[in-house]
Amino acid sequence: MDLGKLFFCGFNDFNEEVKEIIRKYRPAGILIYPGVLSKEYLLMDFMSFLSKEGDFLVSSDHEGGQLEVLKYVPSSPGNLAFGKNSPDVTYRYSKIAGKIMEIVGFNMVFAPVLDLLSEESSSVIDMRSYGSDPKIVAEHGAKACEGYLEGGVMPCIKHFPGHGRAREDSHLTLPVVDAPFEKLWEEDLLPFRKVLEREKKVTVMTAHVRYSSIDSLPATLSEKIITDVLRKKIGFDGLVISDAMEMSAVSNNFSVEEIVSLFLNAGGNMILLGDYRNLPVYYETLVKLLEDGKVQKDKVERSIRMVEKYLAFAKKNSGVGFLADSSAKAVEFLGFEKIDHTSEVTLLVPSSENLSQADTTGGDYDQIPEIVSRFFEVENVVRYTVEDGPEFVEGDLIFDFVADIPNEKALKAHLSLPAEKTVYFVLRNPFDVRYFEGRKIVVTRSTKPISIYKSLEHFLGRCDS
Amino acid sequence: MDLGKLFFCGFNDFNEEVKEIIRKYRPAGILIYPGVLSKEYLLMDFMSFLSKEGDFLVSSDHEGGQLEVLKYVPSSPGNLAFGKNSPDVTYRYSKIAGKIMEIVGFNMVFAPVLDLLSEESSSVIDMRSYGSDPKIVAEHGAKACEGYLEGGVMPCIKHFPGHGRAREDSHLTLPVVDAPFEKLWEEDLLPFRKVLEREKKVTVMTAHVRYSSIDSLPATLSEKIITDVLRKKIGFDGLVISDAMEMSAVSNNFSVEEIVSLFLNAGGNMILLGDYRNLPVYYETLVKLLEDGKVQKDKVERSIRMVEKYLAFAKKNSGVGFLADSSAKAVEFLGFEKIDHTSEVTLLVPSSENLSQADTTGGDYDQIPEIVSRFFEVENVVRYTVEDGPEFVEGDLIFDFVADIPNEKALKAHLSLPAEKTVYFVLRNPFDVRYFEGRKIVVTRSTKPISIYKSLEHFLGRCDS
Repeated sequence: MDLGKLFFCGFNDFNEEVKEIIRKYRPAGILIYPGVLSKEYLLMDFMSFLSKEGDFLVSSDHEGGQLEVLKYVPSSPGNLAFGKNSPDVTYRYSKIAGKIMEIVGFNMVFAPVLDLLSEESSSVIDMRSYGSDPKIVAEHGAKACEGYLEGGVMPCIKHFPGHGRAREDSHLTLPVVDAPFEKLWEEDLLPFRKVLEREKKVTVMTAHVRYSSIDSLPATLSEKIITDVLRKKIGFDGLVISDAMEMSAVSNNFSVEEIVSLFLNAGGNMILLGDYRNLPVYYETLVKLLEDGKVQKDKVERSIRMVEKYLAFAKKNSGVGFLADSSAKAVEFLGFEKIDHTSEVTLLVPSSENLSQADTTGGDYDQIPEIVSRFFEVENVVRYTVEDGPEFVEGDLIFDFVADIPNEKALKAHLSLPAEKTVYFVLRNPFDVRYFEGRKIVVTRSTKPISIYKSLEHFLGRCDS
Repeated sequence: MDLGKLFFCGFNDFNEEVKEIIRKYRPAGILIYPGVLSKEYLLMDFMSFLSKEGDFLVSSDHEGGQLEVLKYVPSSPGNLAFGKNSPDVTYRYSKIAGKIMEIVGFNMVFAPVLDLLSEESSSVIDMRSYGSDPKIVAEHGAKACEGYLEGGVMPCIKHFPGHGRAREDSHLTLPVVDAPFEKLWEEDLLPFRKVLEREKKVTVMTAHVRYSSIDSLPATLSEKIITDVLRKKIGFDGLVISDAMEMSAVSNNFSVEEIVSLFLNAGGNMILLGDYRNLPVYYETLVKLLEDGKVQKDKVERSIRMVEKYLAFAKKNSGVGFLADSSAKAVEFLGFEKIDHTSEVTLLVPSSENLSQADTTGGDYDQIPEIVSRFFEVENVVRYTVEDGPEFVEGDLIFDFVADIPNEKALKAHLSLPAEKTVYFVLRNPFDVRYFEGRKIVVTRSTKPISIYKSLEHFLGRCDS
């Protein structure tokens, strides 16, 4: 059985370890976190990798307002402000957000929040809620789902059956809601019921909250809530995802065995792990529970089919991945086949000063040391001005990042570096290679982080170890 | 005559002065610069303003690669790297860039660059060029225009007839190119010719470069180049825009009278001014030149009709403007009608610490002082922790920005402020207004900069002066 399909994993970095885990366990859901989103070159490379590895549900936490992680999506005032506007405004925002997410490479989003705001709501809800009136929340929630779907991403309504009455933040503790079921049904559940009546390609995320009038288990682990209320009483036969299982509300109160078996037996489909490094333990636990008959095999099979159905719905889109590929394609290596591996590198990096008005590449240079450090041990970083060229440095391996060579003095400075130990990265005008004949040259045709990153990745493949 | 139609103005800020100038002179072209783009709330308010004022060409300088000003558009490695890829890659990038620009509210873009890279190219060109082979540049340029148009923005090919041979940056000096016309025609001009054969809704930007084999005037001011070469020999009957007239290449060598009369008489249509504050002088100069018969009236009328044609092509889209409007609509004022105007305000601003994992609003709080200072003199800014509430402060007018009130201690601290002089901005849960009964309250329903900005704007309207 393809058990990886039952996992949705959060990734706060993209590196060789991530590639190995994805290739080994094949989690169907990929949740991309700010550690990747804030380094655009990693996001591009991740998207390129995913598009070549197969089909995935690719999501972010971007809700707009209180929780915004994608710089590409214009900031929104948040659901609470939208709730005071026509639902068409919510539709408009969700559609543009969905369109941009789809362009970037996502096919899913962990939004909208359908929780009701109340006097007692934890501050973790606040402006994530469309308001306290269940009908208004339902109307906006439905329009949000419509917008996201038209934009190109599948929404995930949350946190079922409603986090609004919880006084605490489930990231920190397990909140308990004591409202009677009838009240929950007419109020908190109403937005979920109305949205699920109208939209079919929606997914549902469960709350790590205990509803004492229904069950002693938190919603995420409760068969009464997931199967009896959501599947039977409401009639939802779509994809149910847990909230992140590492959140204290669940992880402090239940073992991994309990979490996995209770959630899947309760009728949940995908286990969300905030940290992909927890996947091996959860995966092996699931294998063992299946062998021991502690997780129902038919439910697991049904969940796999369910995930496959949503994978078929989901748009296949490498998003910004093509920018990693096209950067790599523009890189050329001249003057060397292989290079001796050395453990430490000295970097000569142009300063960001004196750029033309029509030149925004200064920030690119500032990122070079961080990017190189993903592949090499960086011994020393020396910034130099383009006009003067770099100062003389020594070292086992020197990377001279060449922006432009505006005069003889700068050229002399570049050429004074030890030829055997220096690799010249010609970042801008490739005609500059004429100055470095017979030396080791990498032509990137770009100052951008993604180009430097891909050139270093290919460069590393040429190093002896 | 509607002479404002002949101007494309750059805006590095958005404020009352900008509104007045746009209302008075009605420039048809609006070029939005990083001073606005980097303060998203200004961009939203600017887009909202424009959508209510009429029809404009709204553009940015975003080329991708060497010149990137829109955070919403994924960074590209740049044209030079694209030039080593299939033109379909250029098409794909331009289409997603155009789509996102259109979503944000632009209907035009000052791209693509069609200049040829050469050994002698100034570093202002470098990776903005698709390469040195005229056919490759033509192919990529055409695909770029196709992508932008499909995405939703009109492209502007530049810098006609080709900046690639210029050794200097025209921001700084007037470069001279001595290549014979036949060479320019077969090489530098080829990409422009090919693109203009295929695409009709394209605009052309002229270079501030002198081509000695054609004319002693720079291309921007040359009838031989704009009318004889571009209009007659190439057959382009579309919109011709100058590069920014404040650039030293032109402004150091010609008077405003010469710039305006030469450009319009040469067959150019829209005068680009990098700084909108120069519009009154240029506008009045044009009026005088027309009166004196030094600018040909028929050419001016033809240019106005040309601009109107492009305004009709251009998508009408308020873009992110609706986010300013919806933020404003969610704001409520309680407990006061009017407030005494005072010159200095003390701000109590929550710290960005201890936010929930699902909360990215910390950066919003950090922007509050800058936003308030657009409307009021800020005397003092005190940051406080949400858990402790603000310390006691004095002052003629106090703005207490209330995030959440988690305990009695914090509540007491908020309430200890002088009731008469304090305005409570309830940023998150509106149920918190119950704590401030009888006091002056602004409910924003959002921590976001645009919400705080719009609430202050409306608040100011309630101040006695």
